[in-house]
Amino acid sequence: MASNVPEKQWAMVIEKTGGPVDYKQIPVAKPGPDEVLVNIKYSGVCHTDLHAVNGDWPLATKLPLVGGHEGAGVVVAKGELVTDVEIGDHAGIKWLNGSCLSCDFCQTGDEPLCAKALLSGYTVDGTFQQYAIGKAAHVARIPKDVPLDAIAPILCAGITVYKGLKESGARPGQTVAIVGAGGGLGSLACQYAKAMGLQVIGIDTGDEKAAMSKKLGAHTFVDFAKSSNVVKDVQAATEDGLGPHAVILVAVNEKPFQQATEYVRPRGTVIAIGLPAGAFLRAPVFETVIGVKTIKGSYVGNRKDTSEAIDFYRRGLINAPFKTIGMSELQKVYDMMHEGKIAGRYVVDTSK
Amino acid sequence: MASNVPEKQWAMVIEKTGGPVDYKQIPVAKPGPDEVLVNIKYSGVCHTDLHAVNGDWPLATKLPLVGGHEGAGVVVAKGELVTDVEIGDHAGIKWLNGSCLSCDFCQTGDEPLCAKALLSGYTVDGTFQQYAIGKAAHVARIPKDVPLDAIAPILCAGITVYKGLKESGARPGQTVAIVGAGGGLGSLACQYAKAMGLQVIGIDTGDEKAAMSKKLGAHTFVDFAKSSNVVKDVQAATEDGLGPHAVILVAVNEKPFQQATEYVRPRGTVIAIGLPAGAFLRAPVFETVIGVKTIKGSYVGNRKDTSEAIDFYRRGLINAPFKTIGMSELQKVYDMMHEGKIAGRYVVDTSK
Amino acid sequence: MASNVPEKQWAMVIEKTGGPVDYKQIPVAKPGPDEVLVNIKYSGVCHTDLHAVNGDWPLATKLPLVGGHEGAGVVVAKGELVTDVEIGDHAGIKWLNGSCLSCDFCQTGDEPLCAKALLSGYTVDGTFQQYAIGKAAHVARIPKDVPLDAIAPILCAGITVYKGLKESGARPGQTVAIVGAGGGLGSLACQYAKAMGLQVIGIDTGDEKAAMSKKLGAHTFVDFAKSSNVVKDVQAATEDGLGPHAVILVAVNEKPFQQATEYVRPRGTVIAIGLPAGAFLRAPVFETVIGVKTIKGSYVGNRKDTSEAIDFYRRGLINAPFKTIGMSELQKVYDMMHEGKIAGRYVVDTSK
Amino acid sequence: MASNVPEKQWAMVIEKTGGPVDYKQIPVAKPGPDEVLVNIKYSGVCHTDLHAVNGDWPLATKLPLVGGHEGAGVVVAKGELVTDVEIGDHAGIKWLNGSCLSCDFCQTGDEPLCAKALLSGYTVDGTFQQYAIGKAAHVARIPKDVPLDAIAPILCAGITVYKGLKESGARPGQTVAIVGAGGGLGSLACQYAKAMGLQVIGIDTGDEKAAMSKKLGAHTFVDFAKSSNVVKDVQAATEDGLGPHAVILVAVNEKPFQQATEYVRPRGTVIAIGLPAGAFLRAPVFETVIGVKTIKGSYVGNRKDTSEAIDFYRRGLINAPFKTIGMSELQKVYDMMHEGKIAGRYVVDTSK
Repeated sequence: MASNVPEKQWAMVIEKTGGPVDYKQIPVAKPGPDEVLVNIKYSGVCHTDLHAVNGDWPLATKLPLVGGHEGAGVVVAKGELVTDVEIGDHAGIKWLNGSCLSCDFCQTGDEPLCAKALLSGYTVDGTFQQYAIGKAAHVARIPKDVPLDAIAPILCAGITVYKGLKESGARPGQTVAIVGAGGGLGSLACQYAKAMGLQVIGIDTGDEKAAMSKKLGAHTFVDFAKSSNVVKDVQAATEDGLGPHAVILVAVNEKPFQQATEYVRPRGTVIAIGLPAGAFLRAPVFETVIGVKTIKGSYVGNRKDTSEAIDFYRRGLINAPFKTIGMSELQKVYDMMHEGKIAGRYVVDTSK
Repeated sequence: MASNVPEKQWAMVIEKTGGPVDYKQIPVAKPGPDEVLVNIKYSGVCHTDLHAVNGDWPLATKLPLVGGHEGAGVVVAKGELVTDVEIGDHAGIKWLNGSCLSCDFCQTGDEPLCAKALLSGYTVDGTFQQYAIGKAAHVARIPKDVPLDAIAPILCAGITVYKGLKESGARPGQTVAIVGAGGGLGSLACQYAKAMGLQVIGIDTGDEKAAMSKKLGAHTFVDFAKSSNVVKDVQAATEDGLGPHAVILVAVNEKPFQQATEYVRPRGTVIAIGLPAGAFLRAPVFETVIGVKTIKGSYVGNRKDTSEAIDFYRRGLINAPFKTIGMSELQKVYDMMHEGKIAGRYVVDTSK
Repeated sequence: MASNVPEKQWAMVIEKTGGPVDYKQIPVAKPGPDEVLVNIKYSGVCHTDLHAVNGDWPLATKLPLVGGHEGAGVVVAKGELVTDVEIGDHAGIKWLNGSCLSCDFCQTGDEPLCAKALLSGYTVDGTFQQYAIGKAAHVARIPKDVPLDAIAPILCAGITVYKGLKESGARPGQTVAIVGAGGGLGSLACQYAKAMGLQVIGIDTGDEKAAMSKKLGAHTFVDFAKSSNVVKDVQAATEDGLGPHAVILVAVNEKPFQQATEYVRPRGTVIAIGLPAGAFLRAPVFETVIGVKTIKGSYVGNRKDTSEAIDFYRRGLINAPFKTIGMSELQKVYDMMHEGKIAGRYVVDTSK
Repeated sequence: MASNVPEKQWAMVIEKTGGPVDYKQIPVAKPGPDEVLVNIKYSGVCHTDLHAVNGDWPLATKLPLVGGHEGAGVVVAKGELVTDVEIGDHAGIKWLNGSCLSCDFCQTGDEPLCAKALLSGYTVDGTFQQYAIGKAAHVARIPKDVPLDAIAPILCAGITVYKGLKESGARPGQTVAIVGAGGGLGSLACQYAKAMGLQVIGIDTGDEKAAMSKKLGAHTFVDFAKSSNVVKDVQAATEDGLGPHAVILVAVNEKPFQQATEYVRPRGTVIAIGLPAGAFLRAPVFETVIGVKTIKGSYVGNRKDTSEAIDFYRRGLINAPFKTIGMSELQKVYDMMHEGKIAGRYVVDTSK
């Protein structure tokens, strides 16, 4: 263990579902034999964190809870079985804090489906603290030439949209529509899609989001609030008018989850990523069968997706706009999020 | 052209939507340069034929219409550009009567998605007549050691379930649930699945259907009417309790289209094939995303699927029970179908 | 037929294997019912054309022969069955002049494997003439905003390397080594690879080729003549030192065909495209098995690959340097080719 | 730890490369925190064991060495981190004794490619002893209704051929040729292939092997010693004469490794599994490219392949003939193996 690890640290703690989240001192945990302790420098704030506070997902959180699952920092201690992570390495703690590494899913790179998965900031304490525990096999390896604040949102938002794009099966040169293109996930999705050689149709509303989507890679933008026929306009944005090969749903309301199968191309794939509370996928059997359309859920990435998503960032292909504030002000971020006022991503600085 | 092709023939003709279907004499058509004329010996009767009569699908039929798209017979004439089908060959006319062979979909073996596809017994005259026209590139090649009556139902029902099993991505050794296992499509699906090395869970209702499903390949049968918890019972029928890798929906009502995503295994695939009128697919976004589940429509097979499906039959792996009646009695079959009284497939003999 | 199609035209004709190639007037052919007549404006010159002259491949050519298979021009006549190509359309005649559209390979988008394939400038007359015949289903559709001289080399060289990259299975973000990066095929491969989101290691020799490879997309260049250990240097050019995920062999000599399996990454794929006369692939069984390495041949693309390869060009992602000379000077190009003196591609102008 | 684990045990030990292998008492090892101790009841004898004795592979063994990597038995002790294996469970120790579970390969189910992989009976002590150590994450889970002697050869030979068949990409209904069909690996390959819905062409020599291959699933047998043209005969054994979709090379000499690309179907795949000492794969570039043929190495399976291969056995689809002898007589098996006199597999009983 590095010599300067303190006994106590600052953390944001939720005592009961619904909050509030308190800034207070708690003990620093000690890593088990297959774990590392990471001195978190920065942590991104994700919509999921708000769901954890509010308890509005059909999955209970640990309580009391330290939230956060986009934490980047420096390894300061490790268990005796850990051989491939060193003290001083830069590492990230992401949503998948650990998994069994033995079940059918873990054996085949589907560890997010592991029934024993540990979820950071949800079933185990997360990254809204200065020192967080992660399973060594699962912490993200962060190259030292990558800034820790900027990489934080990649550790969940970036991986998630990158994985969704992979799951879509869209090949370089094909077209993908991104619904919610101007949001935090959407703006990352536009950039990953472009870096993967895809053509991008951004779908969202407002001139600001239109401008940003185009700047980040969309060749066309469809404003769903201004369009008199979204289905027609999205299809018209493809060369042959048949619609995009894939649709990435990072929207926060239900409607596009039901509309996307209408404009996706025959043999195309709709990928659901966003999780609007209580929402349903819905599509007519007849048109889905006749058009051989696919609707698929995509959850966070695995370890390999993680290193790939980070590598795209490292190569300068991803530029995720973010704002930094002190960790102690986390509640303000939640409030803005609740009011739908956030553009881009917030990252908390754990030293403040 | 073979010398004995008559000028007139017997056919079953629908003059207007809703029927009735009349047994009468009509002229024999002449093949165009890229077409063949097939002396249909037998034709299977499919639910789609009843939809064509009733006009209850969101796609208009030709009128007057000769229905039928599971016709097997002997080639008696061909156009001057036809080089790979000979007079005397055995051939099948299936749902895909022809397609452009040039569009993106045709180029990649997705000719059922061709916007210019000709549909037998729907947009062009079909196989409930003694002499039917098919595009040479699309007629099924039937080996001469295969009986023409038994192969008829394979030309639509067989190809369709075989294609659905392929689209599911289930690999030999994995488990597939077949919903509607005791029906015409279902009983074929059980056999194809078994021949493809899959483990089969049959889902349907009634002791007769249970017995038949097991005889045809299902290792377990879940009676949805008797089960107090279908989801639990289907999952319990898999070795590790996580549910089948794929679900094939050949049911004729809507409920299982919405229930299948509940019992399919994480990372599993639900294939919709059946087309209950007005039905919708519906699944909660949260569970679909978290379980990385796929819902996919599968339409009829392409030409390659056709030859493969026939080859499984030829090798003795498929035994589709059917009853033969004279073509002139087609209305009776429709009546039984309408009343849900058909077990297995009916095949009409065009000579009667 | 357009009114101004002449009876006679200029063409480059080979009377016997070994040449020479004569500039002379020959009749203009008439399209069959499923064919089009294209007024070729420009045609690229490919190494294969020289092989056709010399007859040094294990496949006989037609004689007398008009060579050429990278021809771009304007449709001036068409057969009566052709419905999806119009007089005045821009079209390309490529290596695959036609295929049966019915065999197993044609059914599944593998028409280059069709046993009845017609090969332009090899088994049927090609594009070193002013008016060339192509099967309508096979001519490349060229958008009108694409220049006919620049697109010519894409019709064989471009398609071929694009297909090879697809066959390699390399995904965006992964690394591909291109052996012969500075040649005609190689320089196109570098650009397609980059446009597909791949990282590129160029392998060739000479400072000029190094500079060009880097300009066109290679992040690293290994000079095989200067390197004391090519295997080590290629592997060192990848982030983790394990070697590239794929290798694209467009080299014109045998050595790299045997060396590539040494530096490709475990589970990686070596794609052979170039055809050095009499060359062999060769690899030790032990290392190939233990490293789970794949060696695969990739031949020209299918129709879908063609439209995709053209679309990458249309979007401004490919810039194939070429020089134009009169068709009558074709022999000069062959001479330079024979002496290995060509950098980039030559395109002949059929009007001169 | 189970109470009756002794301090000493019987083992077969090699002191130096070249042998001999001695039957003697050695200490029983203690499992580390992530390991289990398995009381081996039976262990199959594989050609690899002889290579380990002789040191004729380009990879050094540990010395002194206890060989063996097809061991089946009962878990009698486990480390404190092991949560998903229990004392009393039946478990198998296979070639992959352990791997890092963290590298790129381990992350994606390619643990046989892990640079830190531990190899049973090669780089760590194996299963020719009564108590062997295995990493808990890697030991095969053996259902209790499966006999421990019969399952032993599945743990290497079975997994290896099953994996090779998966890697070939051959789909149910397609044809696979198995070269060396009458040997230990080959006879398992025939059965797995059949269980996977494949059609099998057995290639080997001798009437006994012909009879056995046919009994185990081959529909045709080509005797390479009697055939005047193996290439022609193998292709003729397929319905359309184009050759098998895949070839599985489990032969022990070099020739078929170079011949298989000649008879495999265009777009087909040749899978190298056998490891004849010093052998090379070799194929002409021209025919490989024009035929779009694939040559691929396949090494042992991963953990998922292991459980799948065992499950095929459990379901009664695999019947691997074997003979049992006392472990102390291992040298006799090596002698017979060296002389090429073994038909089927030998399994040693560690109690004798």
